[in-house]
Amino acid sequence: MEKSGHPGGVPSPGLVFETLTAYQRSAALRAAIELDLFRAIGEGPGDVPSLALRCGASERGIRILCDFLTVIGLITKEGLAYRHTTTSALFLDPNSPTCLAATAQFLGNPRLKEPYERLTEIVRSGRTVMEGQGSVEPEDPVWIEFAHSMAPMMGPMAGPLGAIVLAERGGPMRVLDIAAGHGLFGIEVAKQNPEAIIVALDWAPVLEVARENARRAGIAARYETLPGSAFEVEFGGPYDIVLLTNFLHHFDRPTCIELLQKVRAALKPSGLAATLEFVPNEDRVSPSIPAAFSLTMLATTPGGDAYTYRELEEMLVAAGFHRIRAYPVPRAPHTVVVGEVDHRGQSSIAGKQSG
Amino acid sequence: MEKSGHPGGVPSPGLVFETLTAYQRSAALRAAIELDLFRAIGEGPGDVPSLALRCGASERGIRILCDFLTVIGLITKEGLAYRHTTTSALFLDPNSPTCLAATAQFLGNPRLKEPYERLTEIVRSGRTVMEGQGSVEPEDPVWIEFAHSMAPMMGPMAGPLGAIVLAERGGPMRVLDIAAGHGLFGIEVAKQNPEAIIVALDWAPVLEVARENARRAGIAARYETLPGSAFEVEFGGPYDIVLLTNFLHHFDRPTCIELLQKVRAALKPSGLAATLEFVPNEDRVSPSIPAAFSLTMLATTPGGDAYTYRELEEMLVAAGFHRIRAYPVPRAPHTVVVGEVDHRGQSSIAGKQSG
Repeated sequence: MEKSGHPGGVPSPGLVFETLTAYQRSAALRAAIELDLFRAIGEGPGDVPSLALRCGASERGIRILCDFLTVIGLITKEGLAYRHTTTSALFLDPNSPTCLAATAQFLGNPRLKEPYERLTEIVRSGRTVMEGQGSVEPEDPVWIEFAHSMAPMMGPMAGPLGAIVLAERGGPMRVLDIAAGHGLFGIEVAKQNPEAIIVALDWAPVLEVARENARRAGIAARYETLPGSAFEVEFGGPYDIVLLTNFLHHFDRPTCIELLQKVRAALKPSGLAATLEFVPNEDRVSPSIPAAFSLTMLATTPGGDAYTYRELEEMLVAAGFHRIRAYPVPRAPHTVVVGEVDHRGQSSIAGKQSG
Repeated sequence: MEKSGHPGGVPSPGLVFETLTAYQRSAALRAAIELDLFRAIGEGPGDVPSLALRCGASERGIRILCDFLTVIGLITKEGLAYRHTTTSALFLDPNSPTCLAATAQFLGNPRLKEPYERLTEIVRSGRTVMEGQGSVEPEDPVWIEFAHSMAPMMGPMAGPLGAIVLAERGGPMRVLDIAAGHGLFGIEVAKQNPEAIIVALDWAPVLEVARENARRAGIAARYETLPGSAFEVEFGGPYDIVLLTNFLHHFDRPTCIELLQKVRAALKPSGLAATLEFVPNEDRVSPSIPAAFSLTMLATTPGGDAYTYRELEEMLVAAGFHRIRAYPVPRAPHTVVVGEVDHRGQSSIAGKQSG
């Protein structure tokens, strides 16, 4: 679709119209996933009557939906037949092992979308209109859905994260996985290091999802669970590694520092803390996905944010960490930021060095 | 934001993520308009503290909202200050005479957005889940809002439409403006031809908006009103010109043909019918705005569509019209399609000729 974001560029009332109606894009993709349309497109022949039959839907509905998905670049149209793009073949067809369709469940969760209906009020007050702590209210059931439906998006990052945290560490170790969710990050560490014992911390019902994933991965014997809030439960330890994935962004800086101090106290002197975050550049408006994510934190939390590398570094330093550095995850919008307890550690690890 | 709509292009999980969260773009723009943020940006200096003060909002909220609007290309950021793009300066700043911000009222109307929450069901059944005739249910109050808030988007098209329908016609004439709404199209004809008398047809409360606009334009003495449904009320006549702007797309083909027959019967032998429509190419997936509009008709009407030129031509022919032709409106996503009663008319008018 046309776009004019550059000063001096072509003025575009179309961009205004398309932004005001952008909510239709989310609805169209969600409907297509619910109708199992992308599987039907992948299996061909892709014309309206056969897609309608396959999806148990009307021809008018399928034709208009497929045309719309073509306009927004998710599929293509050749004559009267709809075909996969590389993107839809890899990430939307359930026959693809990298299919992300399940993420529509969490990303379309009505409770997390509702605050956007009151965004004006949220910008005025500077915090979510959700009750209590918003999406980080204790025992919030959205995190069960997160654990189930976001695994396909988070899974591909587990391998790189595991390699980063195990780069200088091996042998018997205890690893605390805070806000484990689906558990995939801790499970990957256990897979990469057969001598690692994982302690997964999350709300009890979420831990059931993680435990099931650990069982499937064949590492259940080395998988322990610690139900409760990261702010309240005793971590135990000491640990060699603490993982803080998709977690700090929900909280304001004092809360993050407080938590990082508690993490540091639970680590061995040789220990490492690793966060996985959406980390925008210092300009806070690039790259697009990490930068745009701060709006989600405005809408759904009292004080969270998509923190820049400098901010994460400051928080880690304030909590007593040393040798802080960032590793962008290949082919993903996330960044791993690590810090160590001992300031005398070697600095042989590749990556953006700082502090 | 990154985009991969081309087969063989770079696979993009980002496009999936951005589409599932596209509803946030609509919410962010609506909030910015409600906070009068674009006026504040236009008047400078554009830093977070002064914007927050001007908008009566929190600094956290303003900073995150402005960063998000920058990411989606509506404004820019220079250091710590936010500035207009050409697009936001022209179309979102209330100090601009071409400001379209009011359209957010109609395009964000909750009643017209709700069906998208049930789009899967709509694609299955092939028609809106709204009661009765959906958005074209008699006396639906959304059309009062349309008349008020869409005038800034429709107004710039009135001049070109007036010039097209008056190209071969002058002197005393009666013009019927069906579904007049804000009335701007008929009013423009009255302004371009001081001998034209306009008869505006719409629901009675909508006609109050049109009548007020006619008064402001100084043509109230030549402005008559005909309250009721275009399908039920007697048109009177005979007319020289009948305008059907933003109307046919709400109905299925048999209904459109029935209405066009009634229009033809109300025209003089030398008469002209002119529709203003979103007209996609025959591929139905380009240009983006007219093509995408069919989803709105799926979601909110029982049988409407964004008709292609060939379909509009077929309907006009079926209703007995001749010399059908299309005029794309300059710098707008709309097209004017006209047909004449008398098949012997001259064909000296410029434009895409057909039939």
